[in-house]
Amino acid sequence: MPPTSPKSESPSDIRLDIRSGRMTNVTSGLAEGYVQANLVILPKSLSFDFLLFCQRNPKPCPILEVIEPGLIDPHLTCSGADIRYDVPLYNIYRNGKLSETCQSIEHVWSDDLVSFLIGCSFSFENALKQAHIPLRHQEMKCNVPMYKTSIPTVTAGIFSGPLVVSMRPVKRSHISKAIQVTSRFPDTHGAPIHVGSPISIGIADLTNPDYGDPVTILDDEEPVFWACGVTPQAAAIVSKPELMITHAPGHMLITDKTDNDFSIF
Amino acid sequence: MPPTSPKSESPSDIRLDIRSGRMTNVTSGLAEGYVQANLVILPKSLSFDFLLFCQRNPKPCPILEVIEPGLIDPHLTCSGADIRYDVPLYNIYRNGKLSETCQSIEHVWSDDLVSFLIGCSFSFENALKQAHIPLRHQEMKCNVPMYKTSIPTVTAGIFSGPLVVSMRPVKRSHISKAIQVTSRFPDTHGAPIHVGSPISIGIADLTNPDYGDPVTILDDEEPVFWACGVTPQAAAIVSKPELMITHAPGHMLITDKTDNDFSIF
Repeated sequence: MPPTSPKSESPSDIRLDIRSGRMTNVTSGLAEGYVQANLVILPKSLSFDFLLFCQRNPKPCPILEVIEPGLIDPHLTCSGADIRYDVPLYNIYRNGKLSETCQSIEHVWSDDLVSFLIGCSFSFENALKQAHIPLRHQEMKCNVPMYKTSIPTVTAGIFSGPLVVSMRPVKRSHISKAIQVTSRFPDTHGAPIHVGSPISIGIADLTNPDYGDPVTILDDEEPVFWACGVTPQAAAIVSKPELMITHAPGHMLITDKTDNDFSIF
Repeated sequence: MPPTSPKSESPSDIRLDIRSGRMTNVTSGLAEGYVQANLVILPKSLSFDFLLFCQRNPKPCPILEVIEPGLIDPHLTCSGADIRYDVPLYNIYRNGKLSETCQSIEHVWSDDLVSFLIGCSFSFENALKQAHIPLRHQEMKCNVPMYKTSIPTVTAGIFSGPLVVSMRPVKRSHISKAIQVTSRFPDTHGAPIHVGSPISIGIADLTNPDYGDPVTILDDEEPVFWACGVTPQAAAIVSKPELMITHAPGHMLITDKTDNDFSIF
């Protein structure tokens, strides 16, 4: 089903802009109504552990597609895309350290690598806007703020680490609606995991996010926290896999699937 | 959260009855409100393929827990249970053939085996009954009828095969409610995959199920089909893994988790 208000540029057009290097920015607000994806690429030897990590932590890591060893085409969600070029910015972690940020991963690609596409909260933002819930980071033309929390993920094999959340300020009178709307999309993080009181989930200072940009919170709003697909990057730092390639936070793969394709009702 | 109308026997009591051999029957209607699980046990070498098969086929194969190689305790869903004894009846498939049906798998257990617990539609039956939707197979005191369909699953590694469904007759005026109620439980197969016309999903004769028992359908009812956790057993026959141990259809592992633990709203 096509989204209700598609922008003129299709996901494949935008991916081509990204592949050619013309577009290197965050992807929030692009191709509205289409599902965006977090990316994690790992050596095959770690693929069972990571798939199990995702299964045990479905709120931060809802799997949209797994691309088998050495394959570059996400044929279930965006056939014709190339996982090596079609994300605006990649992070490469080696032994738990961010070693490189780059626009292509051609130089590190090998037939041993398995790619995981993980749902992204950007893809329910269109549904929030249709419900007349404004998005502060889009109003401020910046990246959504993301924070490491004191909530641990469930360990699987070598993978563990803190839950990372994204935060959107929501008017108190809109909180029920925001929860209802996002509950329809469990594959893109679903309902919030926490409303209000950042300190009680270990976030000391909302003005200082671990990833992305800070946003203004108004007097009639509460900060609302959704599980975030950057969680595997926090796990990379704790778990120290020899190699983990990811998107840079906010710089997502835009798929051909619509939000409606993944809504559960 | 405890279920609203717990029966007197707890899941752990029933598991002990099963372990001792006192209880070898189907588990539908037992420990109402508690989640029951389908079981699949495979050699470690096939565990990534099978976990990916489940991820790609979440309606028939929603994973509740994966128990790592050689471990016997499902510590996330029913700590203290023993995967080798606590299912009333097991099926053992070798190279695609059902080679043995037995009350324990002690004789084939090894440290190389990984166990997968998969959600079961029995666990939303309590919610259907609370919504005043009667369950014909429970009224008839038999096993729910299950059918292989003409709908293919999505292949992963060696695993492929037909989607298996369970069928419950539902009064036409109750169909909306039945869909709404079961939509709340995606981890136990969620909403139906098909309503009415069995032939259009490849089921020629409802009176002759592939697994379980036939049930009566009344004039004011339609057959309603839910994806079924017996799907991996159909995949075993097609995919011929050297060894796959499962529960016998209808003979489930009863966990300590309640339906409410897995409801999404």
